[in-house]
Amino acid sequence: MKARVIVTLKNGVLDPQGQAIEGSLASLGFGGVHGVRQGKVFDLDIEGTDVEAARSQITAMCEKLLANTVIENFAIEISN
Amino acid sequence: MKARVIVTLKNGVLDPQGQAIEGSLASLGFGGVHGVRQGKVFDLDIEGTDVEAARSQITAMCEKLLANTVIENFAIEISN
Repeated sequence: MKARVIVTLKNGVLDPQGQAIEGSLASLGFGGVHGVRQGKVFDLDIEGTDVEAARSQITAMCEKLLANTVIENFAIEISN
Repeated sequence: MKARVIVTLKNGVLDPQGQAIEGSLASLGFGGVHGVRQGKVFDLDIEGTDVEAARSQITAMCEKLLANTVIENFAIEISN
């Protein structure tokens, strides 16, 4: 099974990288863009066919390694 | 409008960061995980209501700043 994990900063957490990107976009002439936030995406192949088992395993991976749950949210998408 | 841009490495491009994550997952006891690839996600708010205009503006942003199109693919999702 293929899975995608998207890790984003929680609301209220400062994102200086996103702010820098927003400034760069403005200086390149792309006006009208606000609230740029950068996150991470992980694509992975996971063995087995049980979607719920995979989801709980990936949740554990996120809590232990892929995301810092103090400041980040994560979302899991699984496709067969 | 809210938009999300997902930037991933093209197939065939080495991803040492993804390999390191895969190794860390294995050493944490998460077996059965392969092909880990890391990418980037950008969330942004864009002014206006014309979805097609926004899509073409974001495509230009990706080509100029957000993605390195030599080694990376990008996907754009727009929601109102």
